[in-house]
Amino acid sequence: MGVEIERKFLLASDDWRKCVENTLEMRQGYLSRDAQSSVRVRICGERADINIKSTRDGIYRLEYEYPIPMQDALDLIRHVAHRPIIEKNRHIVHLGRHCWEIDEFFGENEGLVVAEVELGAVDEPYERPDWLGREVSTDSRYYNSNLSKLPYKYWKDEG
Amino acid sequence: MGVEIERKFLLASDDWRKCVENTLEMRQGYLSRDAQSSVRVRICGERADINIKSTRDGIYRLEYEYPIPMQDALDLIRHVAHRPIIEKNRHIVHLGRHCWEIDEFFGENEGLVVAEVELGAVDEPYERPDWLGREVSTDSRYYNSNLSKLPYKYWKDEG
Repeated sequence: MGVEIERKFLLASDDWRKCVENTLEMRQGYLSRDAQSSVRVRICGERADINIKSTRDGIYRLEYEYPIPMQDALDLIRHVAHRPIIEKNRHIVHLGRHCWEIDEFFGENEGLVVAEVELGAVDEPYERPDWLGREVSTDSRYYNSNLSKLPYKYWKDEG
Repeated sequence: MGVEIERKFLLASDDWRKCVENTLEMRQGYLSRDAQSSVRVRICGERADINIKSTRDGIYRLEYEYPIPMQDALDLIRHVAHRPIIEKNRHIVHLGRHCWEIDEFFGENEGLVVAEVELGAVDEPYERPDWLGREVSTDSRYYNSNLSKLPYKYWKDEG
């Protein structure tokens, strides 16, 4: 169990690519996303897990995550999860004492790239590199759960 | 992962009580119950688990279950699960080589008692004791996921 405080940004340029230390391939599907919570199955490299998040109140929410067998995750994503599946590469960039996760989406969300940092407190200071664009922390369209309902390629105004 | 084949019955009398070998207290809440699947958190004695079932097609469906920490289960049931929570005692009765689970509901489902047997194949024969009433396997009102949406006490026709 944990409390997650995240800030999410668009990217102002491609300069972040020079700072990437590691890239993880991710594939995830949602079993539910409703007013109370979302339930997600994710495959990341050799790892598979199920994740439960309570509904976000701005940048604050409850989160639970449990490892599950890879075959279960493959079956759940293939047969049970809502369409479309989220496909993305997660690029890791360390800046100061924070770890940034830059998600580059494919499939029905091709063209979308967002950078996210997890903070220990709502007002915790963090380094803002030049390649960081507009903050979208509170724009629910960018939640992965919503990108699997209304993918980026169907957005009319991509602001 | 598994395929679950279950048959569910009402009770014709209270005679099953004489056959009970064991009784488990259960408390469970649903994180979701939609067209594709249900996601349930259950506390049963000292055990807590999360359970995923794909949508039932008659008496056939996919099922996955994973243990989780008790405190997570308590928090999920208290803060995240849909209302009302399902409260029941599960009474265990062995008949021949089958194990019957007789669920006696409380709270908003007080007054409802159903007996369920899990079979290895759709056409597997099983003993039918005198205390067994009408079969309700395909009546979706009796699914626990639906009893947490429309509890028994709100049913107009309890047939």
